[in-house]
Amino acid sequence: MELKARLLDIHAGGRRIAILDDETASLMGVHSSDRVKITYKKEELIAIVNIATNFPVNYIGLYQEISTKLGIKDREAIEVQPAEGPQALNYVQAKIRGERLRENEVRTIVEEVVERHLSDIEIASFVTALYIHGLSMDEIEALSQAMVETGSTLVFDKTPILDKHGIGGVPGDKTSILVVPIIAAAGFTIPKTSSRAVTSPAGTADRVETFCPVNLTIEEIKDVVRKTNGCMVWGGALELAPADDIFIQFEYPLAIDPLLLPSIMSKKKAVGATHVIVDIPTGRGAKVKTIGSANALANDFIDLGKRLGINVQCALTFGEQPLGYAVGPALEAREALSTITGNGAADLREKATNISGILFEMIGIANGKQKAENLLGSGKAEEKLRQIIEAQGGNPKIEPDDIRVGEKRAEMTTNKDGRVLWIDNRSIVKIAREAGAPKERGAGIVLKTKLGEHLKKEEVLFEIFAERNPKLEAAVELARRLQPVALSKKPEERMLMGRVPTRTVHRRTFMLER
Amino acid sequence: MELKARLLDIHAGGRRIAILDDETASLMGVHSSDRVKITYKKEELIAIVNIATNFPVNYIGLYQEISTKLGIKDREAIEVQPAEGPQALNYVQAKIRGERLRENEVRTIVEEVVERHLSDIEIASFVTALYIHGLSMDEIEALSQAMVETGSTLVFDKTPILDKHGIGGVPGDKTSILVVPIIAAAGFTIPKTSSRAVTSPAGTADRVETFCPVNLTIEEIKDVVRKTNGCMVWGGALELAPADDIFIQFEYPLAIDPLLLPSIMSKKKAVGATHVIVDIPTGRGAKVKTIGSANALANDFIDLGKRLGINVQCALTFGEQPLGYAVGPALEAREALSTITGNGAADLREKATNISGILFEMIGIANGKQKAENLLGSGKAEEKLRQIIEAQGGNPKIEPDDIRVGEKRAEMTTNKDGRVLWIDNRSIVKIAREAGAPKERGAGIVLKTKLGEHLKKEEVLFEIFAERNPKLEAAVELARRLQPVALSKKPEERMLMGRVPTRTVHRRTFMLER
Repeated sequence: MELKARLLDIHAGGRRIAILDDETASLMGVHSSDRVKITYKKEELIAIVNIATNFPVNYIGLYQEISTKLGIKDREAIEVQPAEGPQALNYVQAKIRGERLRENEVRTIVEEVVERHLSDIEIASFVTALYIHGLSMDEIEALSQAMVETGSTLVFDKTPILDKHGIGGVPGDKTSILVVPIIAAAGFTIPKTSSRAVTSPAGTADRVETFCPVNLTIEEIKDVVRKTNGCMVWGGALELAPADDIFIQFEYPLAIDPLLLPSIMSKKKAVGATHVIVDIPTGRGAKVKTIGSANALANDFIDLGKRLGINVQCALTFGEQPLGYAVGPALEAREALSTITGNGAADLREKATNISGILFEMIGIANGKQKAENLLGSGKAEEKLRQIIEAQGGNPKIEPDDIRVGEKRAEMTTNKDGRVLWIDNRSIVKIAREAGAPKERGAGIVLKTKLGEHLKKEEVLFEIFAERNPKLEAAVELARRLQPVALSKKPEERMLMGRVPTRTVHRRTFMLER
Repeated sequence: MELKARLLDIHAGGRRIAILDDETASLMGVHSSDRVKITYKKEELIAIVNIATNFPVNYIGLYQEISTKLGIKDREAIEVQPAEGPQALNYVQAKIRGERLRENEVRTIVEEVVERHLSDIEIASFVTALYIHGLSMDEIEALSQAMVETGSTLVFDKTPILDKHGIGGVPGDKTSILVVPIIAAAGFTIPKTSSRAVTSPAGTADRVETFCPVNLTIEEIKDVVRKTNGCMVWGGALELAPADDIFIQFEYPLAIDPLLLPSIMSKKKAVGATHVIVDIPTGRGAKVKTIGSANALANDFIDLGKRLGINVQCALTFGEQPLGYAVGPALEAREALSTITGNGAADLREKATNISGILFEMIGIANGKQKAENLLGSGKAEEKLRQIIEAQGGNPKIEPDDIRVGEKRAEMTTNKDGRVLWIDNRSIVKIAREAGAPKERGAGIVLKTKLGEHLKKEEVLFEIFAERNPKLEAAVELARRLQPVALSKKPEERMLMGRVPTRTVHRRTFMLER
């Protein structure tokens, strides 16, 4: 049936929604939430129908997701027909029943996710079934490949291409801001794309954005990498693995991440990485709690890397307290800059040279950690960071103090003396977010102590930064309630970690950052 | 934030959608697909936000689901605030992880499903998790109770209240049209609510609607039952267990029905039933394939009945061929009317008197089947059916031939002689639907033979009825391809039932009728 387009200027978070008046819909035999196929100048897409009672007959209202995709103008004619159910639904149903999916079945699902042929109901059910039944390595490989093939790719005519990924979960992890310049300073290519924070107080893209632009096009990225060997950009708008961006919208509300492996590795494959180090922070309070499960996950990353033609090694790192002292976009950027100039945090420096060292050794350079330390100590890494900042459009002469941090501050002190027994990552995350991070870039926390240090009564445990007083007050109140830093004279004084007075649903703090 | 309402006259299949312009949304800190709480004259509800780029500032566009619920007029002021995540999400996540839910947790989920606080993603994931992990009888009971408590109920000041439910799967099952008048003719109360067809060629409501109205209000139903002891109405608009109506919208596209037991039993509880017979058609080609699984399901129904205070018995009935000869709303109504007047199909008569007999014996009447046969043979059941038809607003003098059936017809014949070895229910369903059933009431199939009968070459196997020629042709073509009736001189000639040439996904024909 030929209908006239009416552009609605409304968007629905990626969903393709079309409005039909009830007479037209009835004539076509479609109901609310049914699918129609829209054809315009040989372009086709599937839309979900909503029904309107006072909408002009022979018109179809198009949400922006559709009009942008088709490049259609108001009142132009388009062909609209009832659409068949998506082919991928058979395979989604097979997965719900617990069957293993073949490569072509996985590809069909990923294609129809990207094309939005599958509805929210069907994608949500697929993600849930993946989580409950688990995935075979064949399925993980097929998902990764299909997610790369349905997106854009970065192609550099160089080899090797190095990359680094942290699976997240530790607040204050600004390692990438040191690793990228160390590797690039040695003359190797490292085109690093990062995400923004979803559930954490800062993603690498949020941190870097406090001192230079990160929202670059693929052509601009290539230019930066050609000039400097490295980059630190936001990957979100590059469509590197668009299926992953859609799956994340379902994993996040459900607090499950069955697609962790294909999600991370498809992005690495899409930037053409040949050698990748995956950082797996481990311990109580991190995403991965035990060395055993960290090893299992590491083996999966390595196996998947082999299947995708990527050399992967993993670093298991200590994840039971924040990395460095600063948490929050601007505060962390300051600390990273200080550390690369020779001051800053010792644990951050140690982790960055460890990670860089493994990458060097993966491409055949002996004594990798020593080489990384030399590049830091000689100022070459700092020089490289300033080149990258300039190439991305920032001020290469920036100093840590130039980065604006929150002006509203409060110090939290201890009410007794003792040794720091634990620092709770999740409470630190909650307080920093209550203070305004990541949206308010200057908000966050600066720790004044770390695990094992001895403090006297009334000494400062940490300082809260905010941009506005109400946020500061809320964060201080939360900090008083959560008590994220526990002190004790002797460890045996603090054996009780929690109490379950009645049966409760254990609400996990879900960390999804990739 | 106070905003002005703009009513949009659009509906979205029950979803509560509100449109904000991007500036207002940004000021409020909400993104596309986030939830907001809308308050108007002490009424509150949660809506999903879509963002518009050219929408007037300080307005909020309301889909019909919202404006109808709130009773709000265009340009009236309402209070809009970002909403917290639904509490039920914690319990949905617990179920995804495989935990058992407690009664109050189940109730919270059902309440927030009915209030549409839970999003499509969350409900789809919950239904999937229920299917994969299974439900405990405690969870099934809690779901049934919560589904009753969140809906309307029918209250009759009589006891016992009898009811009958068939789990479906056998085409042509018009048993209820005989059982209701038999029971009512004996002076017992049987307020039967039925569904329309979803995946079958006819639901009981579709059949009955060919000879009298079925879309009655709760007050009208009470009136009919007071006059006649029985009714045969459509339950869909009565809000008897609205959560179930929502869950079905998720089960259907996913082709899973984990909520079968609470769905059926909550509707029975909502009409106040004290004694219920559940018909479980069993066999190859039915929903339940083996006597073993039929017994297990029957025990679950009986156990759940005890927990809900309902006396339940189950009938395991032969389900390997259609019931009677007619399939399709009008054709089945004709056959039911013929059978109640003493002609018609022997298997239908046998099943109806069996089911009615068990109901009689459940309330202490000996020789139930004999009593049912007497009520049929004496014409009392027919008389009662005509009273019910009249009370519901139909013509009490209606004869089978008055019911209009499709005028386009084609006879399918056999190309050899032999005995009927099998009749494939699913192929019969597909052909009847291809001919136009259930939407085109006169469309369907009339079988001319049943299992075990002997046919000569060129004899008629079945007749296809349609209202329009293209539908008839499509159905004939499908019938030629599917060959739903298999003949053989000796059973051993037809050992091969199917062939799997390469690995294929077994696409189940999903039957959801309740």
